[in-house]
Amino acid sequence: MTMHLNQFFAALSDPTRRAIVEHLTAGPASVSDLAAPHPMALPTFMKHLKVLERAGLVQTIKKGRVRTCHLDATPLVTAQGWIAWQRSLWETRLDHLDQLALALDAEKESADDR
Amino acid sequence: MTMHLNQFFAALSDPTRRAIVEHLTAGPASVSDLAAPHPMALPTFMKHLKVLERAGLVQTIKKGRVRTCHLDATPLVTAQGWIAWQRSLWETRLDHLDQLALALDAEKESADDR
Repeated sequence: MTMHLNQFFAALSDPTRRAIVEHLTAGPASVSDLAAPHPMALPTFMKHLKVLERAGLVQTIKKGRVRTCHLDATPLVTAQGWIAWQRSLWETRLDHLDQLALALDAEKESADDR
Repeated sequence: MTMHLNQFFAALSDPTRRAIVEHLTAGPASVSDLAAPHPMALPTFMKHLKVLERAGLVQTIKKGRVRTCHLDATPLVTAQGWIAWQRSLWETRLDHLDQLALALDAEKESADDR
């Protein structure tokens, strides 16, 4: 899980690799279609694809001379879970602080009334 | 936005930095409290904190000799939005494929009945 999150977050820290993920949400694509919008040499582009493959985000299948890439959304679900968990812990703490502030206000008002 | 996502995802690609975020969801903490569970030299730990600060995830306030760190959850919300958007595009596509498969099945059944 830790290794997966390391590789997943590292994979998404690059705009080319995020653009590849965005492209593949629309469906599988050949390497040449995926590479077309990116102004870089093919070996450089292939390195980005390899990083996504190692992170489990992309699967590549070769049929004849065409390599087709598919998105695997499982790591997206795992990482979204981690982020959502941190947010919920943080927001729960803020809610407790709000409740504490309200309780203190109510106590102060009731003391003022006495 | 792109720069923010680059820095945010790079910041979270390291287990020490994720542990710092997890620690801070419970509330602000001094640098020494934050560093205590991590078996590394303080300068190395400070480098991790700097990465989190540059990514906008941590704010540090110095009062006298104590540095207190706070979590800023804004980048968590931004990154969660990006991931949720990719998932929804991907799941919408899968739903369309399911509907297409059902429509083809229904067409085949109706052809078989004739």
